[in-house]
Amino acid sequence: MKELLKEGERILLFVIDGVGGLPKNGKTELEAANTPNLDKLAEKSVLGFLEPLPPGITPGSGPAHLSIFGYDPLKYNIGRGILEALGIGVKIEKNDLAIRGNFCQIDKNDIIIDRRAGRIETDECKRLVKKISDKIKEIEGVKISFYPGKEHRFVIVLSGENVSDKIKETDPQKEGLKPYEPEPLSKEAEFTSRVLNKMLNEIKNILKDEKANFILMRGYSKPPEMESFYEKFGLRALGIAYYPMYKGLAKLVGMDVIENVKSFEEGIQILKDKHKDYDFVYLHFKETDKAGEDGDFEKKVKEIERVDKYIPEILKCDFKVIAITGDHSTPWKLKSHSWHPVPLLLYSEYAGIDETKRFTEKEAIKGYLGKIKGHELIWILLANAKRLLKYGA
Amino acid sequence: MKELLKEGERILLFVIDGVGGLPKNGKTELEAANTPNLDKLAEKSVLGFLEPLPPGITPGSGPAHLSIFGYDPLKYNIGRGILEALGIGVKIEKNDLAIRGNFCQIDKNDIIIDRRAGRIETDECKRLVKKISDKIKEIEGVKISFYPGKEHRFVIVLSGENVSDKIKETDPQKEGLKPYEPEPLSKEAEFTSRVLNKMLNEIKNILKDEKANFILMRGYSKPPEMESFYEKFGLRALGIAYYPMYKGLAKLVGMDVIENVKSFEEGIQILKDKHKDYDFVYLHFKETDKAGEDGDFEKKVKEIERVDKYIPEILKCDFKVIAITGDHSTPWKLKSHSWHPVPLLLYSEYAGIDETKRFTEKEAIKGYLGKIKGHELIWILLANAKRLLKYGA
Repeated sequence: MKELLKEGERILLFVIDGVGGLPKNGKTELEAANTPNLDKLAEKSVLGFLEPLPPGITPGSGPAHLSIFGYDPLKYNIGRGILEALGIGVKIEKNDLAIRGNFCQIDKNDIIIDRRAGRIETDECKRLVKKISDKIKEIEGVKISFYPGKEHRFVIVLSGENVSDKIKETDPQKEGLKPYEPEPLSKEAEFTSRVLNKMLNEIKNILKDEKANFILMRGYSKPPEMESFYEKFGLRALGIAYYPMYKGLAKLVGMDVIENVKSFEEGIQILKDKHKDYDFVYLHFKETDKAGEDGDFEKKVKEIERVDKYIPEILKCDFKVIAITGDHSTPWKLKSHSWHPVPLLLYSEYAGIDETKRFTEKEAIKGYLGKIKGHELIWILLANAKRLLKYGA
Repeated sequence: MKELLKEGERILLFVIDGVGGLPKNGKTELEAANTPNLDKLAEKSVLGFLEPLPPGITPGSGPAHLSIFGYDPLKYNIGRGILEALGIGVKIEKNDLAIRGNFCQIDKNDIIIDRRAGRIETDECKRLVKKISDKIKEIEGVKISFYPGKEHRFVIVLSGENVSDKIKETDPQKEGLKPYEPEPLSKEAEFTSRVLNKMLNEIKNILKDEKANFILMRGYSKPPEMESFYEKFGLRALGIAYYPMYKGLAKLVGMDVIENVKSFEEGIQILKDKHKDYDFVYLHFKETDKAGEDGDFEKKVKEIERVDKYIPEILKCDFKVIAITGDHSTPWKLKSHSWHPVPLLLYSEYAGIDETKRFTEKEAIKGYLGKIKGHELIWILLANAKRLLKYGA
């Protein structure tokens, strides 16, 4: 449908992470929240449900975001290593290979005693990663970078044209065994395998006097090959997020991202300052998902109310098309992401008509938009922004 | 999505055959029925519509059941011969070829005088089938079995590794012609063609002094090649049905089936006795469909009320996830299966939220589930039973 794209109005996609929920004493988180501003907006808007993945399937943050960014999440797969890298704020380029690393402990016969080296502290992880980083920069022309994560976790990034993800994971997933060799799983991966073997030998030497004296590797992954958001939808896009994962996901599809945003409040300021420079802004709010994951109904209600307070400021930016939704539901009752379709609000002069009065699950049932697939949303936004030509004569 | 499957809660799928309907004096069969127990359950559940096939397409029992069992009914085709066999309770194995047979009458020049041999009585059909069965057991290593149906209809089953369904039908569909030869339609079918020709010669000889002195064959079909219900969804499943067709459909996907169940009441007893041994139970109720096919509004209402009386006993089995729906609609007004989406009720702690108060078409419109494809239902059930991992990280 790319041939239909044209210039048009500016669009805001506001993602309230995990906003969809389940009832407690007959009311969901959204129903229990006092949201005068969202209510007023809902009355002027149309509602519906957004389903990031097929019915019943609970998405991780990666597929959920690809979906709301307009990419079929079953077609583009974001590997574990890439997600780990995004989660700690590592920038991933086209030819990079990201690997999830664990510090572990082996005995003198190379048998794994502890796969997590006693879950070392994050500061210890940082020290070890620095120690390795100082010594290993490059092997056979492949640039190698190490980034500390939480506790025993870290990320390795290999940058080079010939690196391959077709490598055997070295983590045997249990103690009492030797780590596996990073064997090539295809002909093209032989070079990468050799580089990784050399790297492991060097690391073994560097860590030999440490308690955490070796590493395990898994989740080899390269960024999915896909068109950028701009190529696909013709939108110069800004991503405003304050958690590394969501900055990373926005960068993955080629959105501009402001690095030093640390809170939603700072994000709102960026929105006010920058929105006019872009065709499309993706704004992310995180704490609703966290409260849901903690099973904390009241906290989630409060975070929804916190969001509500910023709605007037957001509206002042005068986007002609605004979508408010979640990347998935995170009901307090499940303490996790879930498969439940997420309420979706669409504000636009041309949105349609319905009788919805609040941004809630029950109101969404009555909504004009019905239930749409996550990756269909972008087309409705483009249409409302008058950014699409007619198909056929 | 198979990689997402895990252990979880037990699921009941209760199929009220042909339950969806059309209004008479402003009320559908479900609306006219007095159903206090279903009403109470609907209030605690969420509703929606299930569409076994694409919009407008009326399903037969085969595709309708494949769909609610989670198989894409456009991908897996159950041939006429197999359905005939299932309908009279014949067990079909992987390498079997099922054929629909008609007794017919030919003259001395082999010209068909009557394609149904005067619609012979069912008892006469049984006698003729026995006469043939006594003489023909096997040809060239292929086991051949004959099963009487109603009137002139019967079923032939060839069992052998090399049997093929690529055979020309012998029924020319009109009188005044000779039956066609069962010619091979592909190279691989030459053996089967030879076996069938020998069989026809023997049958001609066996029946030479009968009025119904020959047979016509069509609907050559083998069971669809598909993963079993257990392989596909990780569910140890029990099918409880009292009509051969539905027992057969449950068996076709590999469910356990109790053979000697003769009524819904006996089925309920089996449910109570056996449900704890299974992850998934499919329970079938037939009479609503029959009343619909007869165009008998009042009878269908009564049968829905009969179902309602068993709801408390069904609930006592303590399934954490219960779906109640039909395999298709059978409106009294059409006296046949129809294309109308079927009301769907989902009971589960995590089902969602809506304001539906009865299990009816009008209430289903207001339901949280919206309209789903038949073969999507199983994923929603698996999700509610906490039997699915998250997709992607």
